[in-house]
Amino acid sequence: MVVKEYVTYNQVHKLCQEAAPRILEDFQPQLMIAIGGGGYVPARILRSFLKQPGSPNIPIQAIGLSLYEQLPSTHPSSSSTPGEVEQPGTKVTRTQWLDLTSLGEMENLVGKRILIVDEVDDTRTTLEYAVKELEKDVEIARKKLGYEGEPTKFSIFVLHNKNKEKKGRLPEDMLDENRYLAARTVEDVWICYPWEAADIDEHDEMARKQPTAGNI
Amino acid sequence: MVVKEYVTYNQVHKLCQEAAPRILEDFQPQLMIAIGGGGYVPARILRSFLKQPGSPNIPIQAIGLSLYEQLPSTHPSSSSTPGEVEQPGTKVTRTQWLDLTSLGEMENLVGKRILIVDEVDDTRTTLEYAVKELEKDVEIARKKLGYEGEPTKFSIFVLHNKNKEKKGRLPEDMLDENRYLAARTVEDVWICYPWEAADIDEHDEMARKQPTAGNI
Repeated sequence: MVVKEYVTYNQVHKLCQEAAPRILEDFQPQLMIAIGGGGYVPARILRSFLKQPGSPNIPIQAIGLSLYEQLPSTHPSSSSTPGEVEQPGTKVTRTQWLDLTSLGEMENLVGKRILIVDEVDDTRTTLEYAVKELEKDVEIARKKLGYEGEPTKFSIFVLHNKNKEKKGRLPEDMLDENRYLAARTVEDVWICYPWEAADIDEHDEMARKQPTAGNI
Repeated sequence: MVVKEYVTYNQVHKLCQEAAPRILEDFQPQLMIAIGGGGYVPARILRSFLKQPGSPNIPIQAIGLSLYEQLPSTHPSSSSTPGEVEQPGTKVTRTQWLDLTSLGEMENLVGKRILIVDEVDDTRTTLEYAVKELEKDVEIARKKLGYEGEPTKFSIFVLHNKNKEKKGRLPEDMLDENRYLAARTVEDVWICYPWEAADIDEHDEMARKQPTAGNI
């Protein structure tokens, strides 16, 4: 049986608030990249808590990534259709990427400290894709510029990291340098985020009743 | 004195939920464009309620627009700096625009029904900018394609519309055809959205105590 854990909006808000000081101190991000749709809400909340008096907001760029599930070919008669099965996905598709015109052809990313934000680190497939592709783009831009200064540093913030075997890999130096922060590490449970709730009052009630009381 | 109105996350959730049936029936959007950062949260919530069984999620493209305030030149000795004054802005700056590579050079927008999502319609400056620029881009793409079919239809959803004189104008046909939906129309109050709350419990308490009880 899959265990469900309900997380309330206010809990998501507090997870971002709690993580903000460490993000400011350790990552000092100059730009956020929100992986949509899940990263939209935490990124917007984080922006409030990362704002420094007298400084402008840290800009957010949104990218859209979808995990497409591949059905096992051993079930040709399955009535399920892709996208409706509960199965780890293996293929990442871009629905939106960085807007190069506003960013100045990636140049504004070179040498910067960039925080990638998503809701959950499940199989890590999406995060691996995001980091690899962003690093690739930045490296091309760096060469084009002939830039030899500070390296571009990507860091990651997720609300929840699932303690499970990961399919995706993150760069060694990112892990070595602790540029990965999960507000909470949880078991391989089904996390119910509030923005997916059909009845938000019932959702909050479920959260209150569970042993963790929504504090996961 | 500026009246503050506190809106809770759950109220934002319910405003999106309440608006969804009308959006589905009247606008039938095929794509959402979220104006960041304020549009991120309602767009993500709306996506849940616009999802039809058996159909994929409605994709979201995020754009980033900032209103830059211009200080009146009659206050040269003001110690305020732009961005820190409470004053309607007059200049819109793009921080992110559509990603043309993933969208297929705007072609995927031509002839589509597109829902623009933001948190609040204050002076309408940002919304005017968004609609005008999007219409311009789509018209260029339409001509390039030689497309003569169904016109591209933009509609707007905001959580709150402030009942005040607007600086920005929306296209006549959008208003005539009721392609503008505000979940609530409010007076010219200061709306405190939850994602800006330094203390979310206190924020909720303030919302509970006000006459509207957060139901604005």
